[in-house]
Amino acid sequence: MKRILVIHGPNLNLLGKREPQIYGSLSLAHINEEIEKVARKEGASVDTFQSNSEGELINRIQEAMGRSDAIVINPGGYTHTSVAIRDAIIAVGIPAVEVHLSNIYKREEFRKRSMLSDVVVGQVAGFGMDSYLLGLKAAIGILENKG
Amino acid sequence: MKRILVIHGPNLNLLGKREPQIYGSLSLAHINEEIEKVARKEGASVDTFQSNSEGELINRIQEAMGRSDAIVINPGGYTHTSVAIRDAIIAVGIPAVEVHLSNIYKREEFRKRSMLSDVVVGQVAGFGMDSYLLGLKAAIGILENKG
Amino acid sequence: MKRILVIHGPNLNLLGKREPQIYGSLSLAHINEEIEKVARKEGASVDTFQSNSEGELINRIQEAMGRSDAIVINPGGYTHTSVAIRDAIIAVGIPAVEVHLSNIYKREEFRKRSMLSDVVVGQVAGFGMDSYLLGLKAAIGILENKG
Amino acid sequence: MKRILVIHGPNLNLLGKREPQIYGSLSLAHINEEIEKVARKEGASVDTFQSNSEGELINRIQEAMGRSDAIVINPGGYTHTSVAIRDAIIAVGIPAVEVHLSNIYKREEFRKRSMLSDVVVGQVAGFGMDSYLLGLKAAIGILENKG
Amino acid sequence: MKRILVIHGPNLNLLGKREPQIYGSLSLAHINEEIEKVARKEGASVDTFQSNSEGELINRIQEAMGRSDAIVINPGGYTHTSVAIRDAIIAVGIPAVEVHLSNIYKREEFRKRSMLSDVVVGQVAGFGMDSYLLGLKAAIGILENKG
Amino acid sequence: MKRILVIHGPNLNLLGKREPQIYGSLSLAHINEEIEKVARKEGASVDTFQSNSEGELINRIQEAMGRSDAIVINPGGYTHTSVAIRDAIIAVGIPAVEVHLSNIYKREEFRKRSMLSDVVVGQVAGFGMDSYLLGLKAAIGILENKG
Amino acid sequence: MKRILVIHGPNLNLLGKREPQIYGSLSLAHINEEIEKVARKEGASVDTFQSNSEGELINRIQEAMGRSDAIVINPGGYTHTSVAIRDAIIAVGIPAVEVHLSNIYKREEFRKRSMLSDVVVGQVAGFGMDSYLLGLKAAIGILENKG
Amino acid sequence: MKRILVIHGPNLNLLGKREPQIYGSLSLAHINEEIEKVARKEGASVDTFQSNSEGELINRIQEAMGRSDAIVINPGGYTHTSVAIRDAIIAVGIPAVEVHLSNIYKREEFRKRSMLSDVVVGQVAGFGMDSYLLGLKAAIGILENKG
Amino acid sequence: MKRILVIHGPNLNLLGKREPQIYGSLSLAHINEEIEKVARKEGASVDTFQSNSEGELINRIQEAMGRSDAIVINPGGYTHTSVAIRDAIIAVGIPAVEVHLSNIYKREEFRKRSMLSDVVVGQVAGFGMDSYLLGLKAAIGILENKG
Amino acid sequence: MKRILVIHGPNLNLLGKREPQIYGSLSLAHINEEIEKVARKEGASVDTFQSNSEGELINRIQEAMGRSDAIVINPGGYTHTSVAIRDAIIAVGIPAVEVHLSNIYKREEFRKRSMLSDVVVGQVAGFGMDSYLLGLKAAIGILENKG
Amino acid sequence: MKRILVIHGPNLNLLGKREPQIYGSLSLAHINEEIEKVARKEGASVDTFQSNSEGELINRIQEAMGRSDAIVINPGGYTHTSVAIRDAIIAVGIPAVEVHLSNIYKREEFRKRSMLSDVVVGQVAGFGMDSYLLGLKAAIGILENKG
Amino acid sequence: MKRILVIHGPNLNLLGKREPQIYGSLSLAHINEEIEKVARKEGASVDTFQSNSEGELINRIQEAMGRSDAIVINPGGYTHTSVAIRDAIIAVGIPAVEVHLSNIYKREEFRKRSMLSDVVVGQVAGFGMDSYLLGLKAAIGILENKG
Repeated sequence: MKRILVIHGPNLNLLGKREPQIYGSLSLAHINEEIEKVARKEGASVDTFQSNSEGELINRIQEAMGRSDAIVINPGGYTHTSVAIRDAIIAVGIPAVEVHLSNIYKREEFRKRSMLSDVVVGQVAGFGMDSYLLGLKAAIGILENKG
Repeated sequence: MKRILVIHGPNLNLLGKREPQIYGSLSLAHINEEIEKVARKEGASVDTFQSNSEGELINRIQEAMGRSDAIVINPGGYTHTSVAIRDAIIAVGIPAVEVHLSNIYKREEFRKRSMLSDVVVGQVAGFGMDSYLLGLKAAIGILENKG
Repeated sequence: MKRILVIHGPNLNLLGKREPQIYGSLSLAHINEEIEKVARKEGASVDTFQSNSEGELINRIQEAMGRSDAIVINPGGYTHTSVAIRDAIIAVGIPAVEVHLSNIYKREEFRKRSMLSDVVVGQVAGFGMDSYLLGLKAAIGILENKG
Repeated sequence: MKRILVIHGPNLNLLGKREPQIYGSLSLAHINEEIEKVARKEGASVDTFQSNSEGELINRIQEAMGRSDAIVINPGGYTHTSVAIRDAIIAVGIPAVEVHLSNIYKREEFRKRSMLSDVVVGQVAGFGMDSYLLGLKAAIGILENKG
Repeated sequence: MKRILVIHGPNLNLLGKREPQIYGSLSLAHINEEIEKVARKEGASVDTFQSNSEGELINRIQEAMGRSDAIVINPGGYTHTSVAIRDAIIAVGIPAVEVHLSNIYKREEFRKRSMLSDVVVGQVAGFGMDSYLLGLKAAIGILENKG
Repeated sequence: MKRILVIHGPNLNLLGKREPQIYGSLSLAHINEEIEKVARKEGASVDTFQSNSEGELINRIQEAMGRSDAIVINPGGYTHTSVAIRDAIIAVGIPAVEVHLSNIYKREEFRKRSMLSDVVVGQVAGFGMDSYLLGLKAAIGILENKG
Repeated sequence: MKRILVIHGPNLNLLGKREPQIYGSLSLAHINEEIEKVARKEGASVDTFQSNSEGELINRIQEAMGRSDAIVINPGGYTHTSVAIRDAIIAVGIPAVEVHLSNIYKREEFRKRSMLSDVVVGQVAGFGMDSYLLGLKAAIGILENKG
Repeated sequence: MKRILVIHGPNLNLLGKREPQIYGSLSLAHINEEIEKVARKEGASVDTFQSNSEGELINRIQEAMGRSDAIVINPGGYTHTSVAIRDAIIAVGIPAVEVHLSNIYKREEFRKRSMLSDVVVGQVAGFGMDSYLLGLKAAIGILENKG
Repeated sequence: MKRILVIHGPNLNLLGKREPQIYGSLSLAHINEEIEKVARKEGASVDTFQSNSEGELINRIQEAMGRSDAIVINPGGYTHTSVAIRDAIIAVGIPAVEVHLSNIYKREEFRKRSMLSDVVVGQVAGFGMDSYLLGLKAAIGILENKG
Repeated sequence: MKRILVIHGPNLNLLGKREPQIYGSLSLAHINEEIEKVARKEGASVDTFQSNSEGELINRIQEAMGRSDAIVINPGGYTHTSVAIRDAIIAVGIPAVEVHLSNIYKREEFRKRSMLSDVVVGQVAGFGMDSYLLGLKAAIGILENKG
Repeated sequence: MKRILVIHGPNLNLLGKREPQIYGSLSLAHINEEIEKVARKEGASVDTFQSNSEGELINRIQEAMGRSDAIVINPGGYTHTSVAIRDAIIAVGIPAVEVHLSNIYKREEFRKRSMLSDVVVGQVAGFGMDSYLLGLKAAIGILENKG
Repeated sequence: MKRILVIHGPNLNLLGKREPQIYGSLSLAHINEEIEKVARKEGASVDTFQSNSEGELINRIQEAMGRSDAIVINPGGYTHTSVAIRDAIIAVGIPAVEVHLSNIYKREEFRKRSMLSDVVVGQVAGFGMDSYLLGLKAAIGILENKG
């Protein structure tokens, strides 16, 4: 059974509480449930984790060594600035998929650069909650192509 | 029944013939078959089109008005330069999903800028043929959320 | 009698069908009629041409050699990218006027650079259909100052 | 009767005295006469004003509130630097047309940026005295479309 | 009674201990006392918080939802890099005022860009401890204009 | 008694007449009255001056030598371009506070650079009329810390 | 016998008709004859092709697979913009030589960047028709060193 | 007898009053006397003019047509921003020498660009009052080489 | 006895586990032992600290005030982004040496900029574990030169 | 008889000793022999010169005045930095051809700019030793077209 | 008696032989004679030196320590690139004046940056041979103001 | 016995004579003695070389082939500009260590880029003479790890 770690970066715990025009009206709890439903359907297990702290996100990525087969990560605001999360992804050597709820190219100029984009396998962005679900399927696909 | 137009840009007709390390070893015909399988399963119809000519791609996008409900487009080399394809996407007003076989952020610097990224709904990139299949599902999801 | 070639670039065939807030609600056929009315009034003959293909636009510009005295061109999305159309304008040596329906400086950053602006005689932009009519008068004026 | 204010920026009082290769050989007085002729023909009244002082140009633009229906402005050397004239145009809320005698894209690099281009309705450039006359017609056209 | 949250970013706990030529010789405790004095005088209550951790600062901003009416924030070194704090400010939707002890424009080039400046209501910078006190008054003024 | 010079740059004489969504609905006369009220309360005298002319603003700054103890200046559109006003501020050696009615970081890109920001003591921006009143208090605070 | 494909990009069909100061006075037909003479002398066969259309140029490059051993290409105005032609060159895997009639470094700034320069074997530029003839010899040399 | 116009830009009327570490301790009156002494010795007549207003400086340059043979100009803070003064220098066609008291390359980054440097004959900078005297001699030299 | 604090930034706890081609095959524990050996030999005491959290790294630097005479720091991924760590180094006023295991100039473009490089005494980079040992010696040398 | 000077810049004396993957395995002596063979065949005489010193290269170029009819130069590492060699080429007025063994566009970013490219007649790059031989032929062709 | 060293950089030995339109028709020998005449008149002694070698120019600057009171230097092509000559000027601590025959701002973009401009006392440029003579007088003036 | 070549670039022969605040007060001779002492202690032999000439430095690096096992180089002012020295380091294939007396990141902007940094093994900068001694130890360490 494929084990997938889904990581939510800073401020994603507020989902559904504010800015529905950008992020949709679903709560993080609901999204996690949907993720688990899809995982079950695809025969995969899933762990979810959210933190506002860059250090804790790095810790969690490191802990995935030997425990997860793939990572689906929405790095939130750290997408554009964190060399340290990038380095963690590189260091653990676990295939990762970057997801974004919104289309980051429709927003501020600085959101167009992702520090992760060239160290993950691929990206899914702009489809709201579906970005997570498609990203999860992409991660499972990667493992199947490999296995 | 949702009608989806899948557009393949320049050089994608060579898929499977050259550069498998970047684009995988599958031919375009095979990819189109897989796209159709998924479409059928999701209850959607699909048209596919490939051209090396920017003008023909624009013509085909224009013809989608009133005939397609969503577009899945891999603009190939025109991704990074074509204001005219961008304008066609804007002009027809049909929701579009941008897909790329390879992770464009792992390649040359100039491939990091897409002229379409902020006029499509979202992007899927880096998963080989799966980019098309996930992009197709994303397109169907958009139509379902709307409908 | 002065012979003027009026060239419409990609997506201008959709005029009046979509995005009236940017381009006005007039169709291209109607604009061409107005252009012909003004031409008649000014004692000039006019040919109009539209294509979505960069190559066909270049072909048409080349064919103007010896057949047209001036060119009025709205290069559409090719305005910002086409060295080849620029080279065609230089090569045929026919005085040209660049026109735009919308004020390109009020739109995306990349629309501020025109590849033609320094090889044409002048520009008219921002006045909707009137941009064409004023551009036509400008072209006739250039020929009169010369003749 | 439409009232148009025509503003000439710095050094335009020297027209016809120097640099005919760039600006033509006509004096400013002559240009103003031609402007008035066209205005009369179009059933509009026209005021003309020239100053070398940025502050006086701003004062004159402000005085147009309630007294002019449209502005045709050739901001001369202030085109490329004056945020304050830009702010005056925004503040008075009168539709404006930017005109230039020469094609500013054929000259020094710094002349390619206009501080006014995105706050005016449109631009006419490169046709010598005709830039003013076409700009005047454009201004009248704007008022007619509105009225 | 208006409730104001005052947030001090990284290294501000060292105030008064080092670099008095830049930050003045007052300790953070003293500044907090002065802030409370002004708040009392203005009929507002105030909470103060300092942390060196980006994640904790985000947590504290999130906790202000429903508990504070305005935020006065000196983001310290995170001013120039933190998209995640920016996102927290946007997400909680509480009006915020950005303050800096020193004039950030007199220091290193990279300090001239603030990631918060366009999501807060306004800025006060360069007046030492008075930046906080004026920022507090500005925040109260915002609430009064609203209320 | 502290003597403060308050300088209003170009177009601020139009305050309250246009663009209330950016600058508020108060007239400059009203703002000057409020400034004087606060000054009286703080035991300071105040002179106010407005001009659309860069030269006159420089003249007025120069005349402050020996007559004013501090300057509060809203340079308007000259904020972003005037080396000469910057030089005047440096040359007279009177402590100055830069104020802006609107949050200049929420507006056009070119408004983000101030030519004065590193030669004044500090800035207050974004609080409408309160920017002036807080700036006045900041100026008085500077003189008190000195005296 | 080595088979060489010589490709002429947009506007090169006008050679000898216009702008002799830049491109020399020889017609394309004459150049093709000289190319064939040299090819014969070197024991190679040669195909020549010209088009103003980017798509047709790509089609022709693709058709070279299995039919040509090397390509000599003067991409004309597409040199500086075409990712799609670049991708075609990469995809077919046939060694290519880039040639230019004029010294592109003596012309406009934008002509200094070639989208092909790092995917071809080498460049020859600045020698008029001789650029083609030397490029042809270079192509033959590449094949000989390989064979 | 050669007639030289010496123009002093904004804030130079404060010379000797402030910032002696940058501009020396001599007053403008004293400098003008020294300029006149050198002029007399070289058999030239000299007019001097100072203004803080860009418009007045342009007016004075325009008035030099037919009245002065050369211009020595220290444009002060307008050096770096004034296209309009540049245009005046070009328009009057009188040879000009640009002088600066201080070495502008040792100061702020933005002082390194002069809008006049490529339209004057030459520059003298960094020698305090001697910059004017050497600039005057340079101007006389230019006239002698011509005459 | 000189007291040296050695700080390891994010992901350095993974040393020896992954990416030996970049970071060598030694574990962090082993490196710390070697550091202590060298320290003992040089008559210095040493404290080592690792964290993935920017905030904790800042806390630890602050705690060094009065407890450590010099700092040797490998800021890992925070090297390129952390103004806050930079500020902590400045604020505590303890001489610091920046070390990197790999040659950061051979890696991604963004690794070439260090936010610490101009606030530390010097750098040692590229020598694997030896970077730490040489950096430690450098730190001791600084203290000896001072003492 | 045409006299050609062939100049080899710094480090080309090491050819054949190191880095054959970039520069081929031929020694400079061997290349010079091949150059002489081709020259003899074409009825030209040839002088060859190599130096690691920029000054000596300039001296040698200067000495070519009146002694050589054309120059073939591989400026090695000075290609990208030497204004002084550029000036020497301009000053002697002898037509020059720039050659490079490797395709400089496939290497480091800074190798893409040549300080000579716009003062030579043309360039040949990427063909190993053949770059010299083709460059020599190009030089002879230039002289023949002239003579 | 003041001792002045006059240094001529690369290619200045060709003066009068080529490019008179840029550098005038005088030979370097003639210029040196004129320099000596002026020096004699001003009661100074003068040494002149020319080399095409950056190293020799540095050697000569170093030898000036204790032997020359000021340096007048025309660094030719090294102006724009030589950190090493800059360092030599800084290191010897002798006041230097930078001179250029031509107005470097009227030439190529890269000539606008001088590596020396902020380490010399001042510059004189654009006056042909007079640049040297005025620069010499400037150097003597510097010594007199000091002495 | 390991043989190390220590190379000192331009102006380092002046060490101890000038600018002690940047480079320390030790002469180059003294530094060379200390280098030799450390080398002896570490069981290595050392050659030292200084030149102001880029060409001679390249010559000396080339001569190290087969004679030195490692190079310690302080390229002085050539650090930031010399592609030719970079190429020499690459070409000889001897491991090199780049050292700087001062912290180059605390000085002018242009000193932040080293042309050598990505072709040497590592860098040591900022520790005065100790930079050489630590660099020497680093070089020996590299050889030991290899051997």
